[in-house]
Amino acid sequence: MKITGAARVYCLLGDPLHKARTPEHFNGFFAARAMDALMVPLEVPDGQLRAVFDALKRIKNLDGVIVTMPHKAGMAALVDRLAPNGRNVGAINAARRGADGRWIGDMFDGQGYTGALRGRGVDPSGKRVHLVGAGAVARAIGFALLEQGVAAITLTDLDRARADALAAALKASTSAQTPADADIVINCTPLGMQEGDPLPFDPAQLKPGTVVSDVTTKPEITPLLAAAQARGLAISTGRDMFEAQADALARFFGWP
Amino acid sequence: MKITGAARVYCLLGDPLHKARTPEHFNGFFAARAMDALMVPLEVPDGQLRAVFDALKRIKNLDGVIVTMPHKAGMAALVDRLAPNGRNVGAINAARRGADGRWIGDMFDGQGYTGALRGRGVDPSGKRVHLVGAGAVARAIGFALLEQGVAAITLTDLDRARADALAAALKASTSAQTPADADIVINCTPLGMQEGDPLPFDPAQLKPGTVVSDVTTKPEITPLLAAAQARGLAISTGRDMFEAQADALARFFGWP
Repeated sequence: MKITGAARVYCLLGDPLHKARTPEHFNGFFAARAMDALMVPLEVPDGQLRAVFDALKRIKNLDGVIVTMPHKAGMAALVDRLAPNGRNVGAINAARRGADGRWIGDMFDGQGYTGALRGRGVDPSGKRVHLVGAGAVARAIGFALLEQGVAAITLTDLDRARADALAAALKASTSAQTPADADIVINCTPLGMQEGDPLPFDPAQLKPGTVVSDVTTKPEITPLLAAAQARGLAISTGRDMFEAQADALARFFGWP
Repeated sequence: MKITGAARVYCLLGDPLHKARTPEHFNGFFAARAMDALMVPLEVPDGQLRAVFDALKRIKNLDGVIVTMPHKAGMAALVDRLAPNGRNVGAINAARRGADGRWIGDMFDGQGYTGALRGRGVDPSGKRVHLVGAGAVARAIGFALLEQGVAAITLTDLDRARADALAAALKASTSAQTPADADIVINCTPLGMQEGDPLPFDPAQLKPGTVVSDVTTKPEITPLLAAAQARGLAISTGRDMFEAQADALARFFGWP
């Protein structure tokens, strides 16, 4: 990996970032292709995104950004143009400078998740899906699953208003019930990232053949996924999602 | 070289940067020491430094910047505190976040030059020095040479007011004459960086034993240095200066 003064620069904007896999993944990607390019982690505190992005846009060799917590929704308001996924979700996780100098943003979390399912041999079309959590990740995944022709989506969230809002957007139903009827159950809450977290739901209630998904990469096998595997259920991991998403991001940025 | 989300970030601010050696040098330095750190070239156009630095200060994992043309003077006005060299020169080429969160800046061009002489076995104390050009680099080198106890400094610049101002600051004399009397002659103009540039002065007039110095790294052997070598004169190069300065910068940033 040889970074010269002529390097093209991409930044990852979020806070905290010490667990983020994006810099290591893409710097390895650039090195493997002998690209003179960098993915720079920049820990931008909540509330500072506008000032930072305004400055980054002035830098001539900066071609794009990847955006993570807590800035995905805020970033959607800062780009010049939103691609359809980003507009649907109301949040983006990547933006690039177009040939005309204007910035375009899009959201790839949903494509990452459907790619993860595909990689595990699971076709979501016609399936009943249950989302646990109704935040930005659930929103992105929900829209991507609708596009794949799922039969029905149910969802829950401790924040009832947030659950209702997402259900309305996805034409889904909220449910206080167990996800026992679902074919695919996805944990879109942060539960499982911290040691000692309770399970987001009890996988004992799931029927055989249910696919259980988690979205975090650290740890890759969350207690929920371990419990699902112990029951003999199929899983998909945050790492699957990360890798499928990385491919989509490379295409978005025009990398070889 | 493995850059994770926990990387510490340093930036090189200037424009243009495609010829800058700093990113390659320090990224190699970090890699050789297995440091999770990055030196990121950011092409910041003239007039945009304030907005960019104001944003960079908000980034939690950004610990320092190196500054090059055209921002060395402007940067001196943006830090919270100037070290003595930077205050003397009125321009800085490095700044770091102190333990108290305030930014301190300093100028290392002069130390780089005196280190280059030392590396070539030249002791400037008691010597007569002639500076060609009276810009920021000449200023930094002049102050560093004064500290080393040179006998006298003369200087020239096409911009007579700039020459007079630097002469006053250095207690030097301006001279329209040839540098024939000097023991050390330093080209501080950009002449020699572009193909087809005229020589900044004619080395044929120099007496045997004169040391001829240039400050650019690209090319390392400028037409002036080639002509000096052809005459059998000793030289020091911009690369010597760059390497001596890099050591001083590593100490400034606290790198192992």
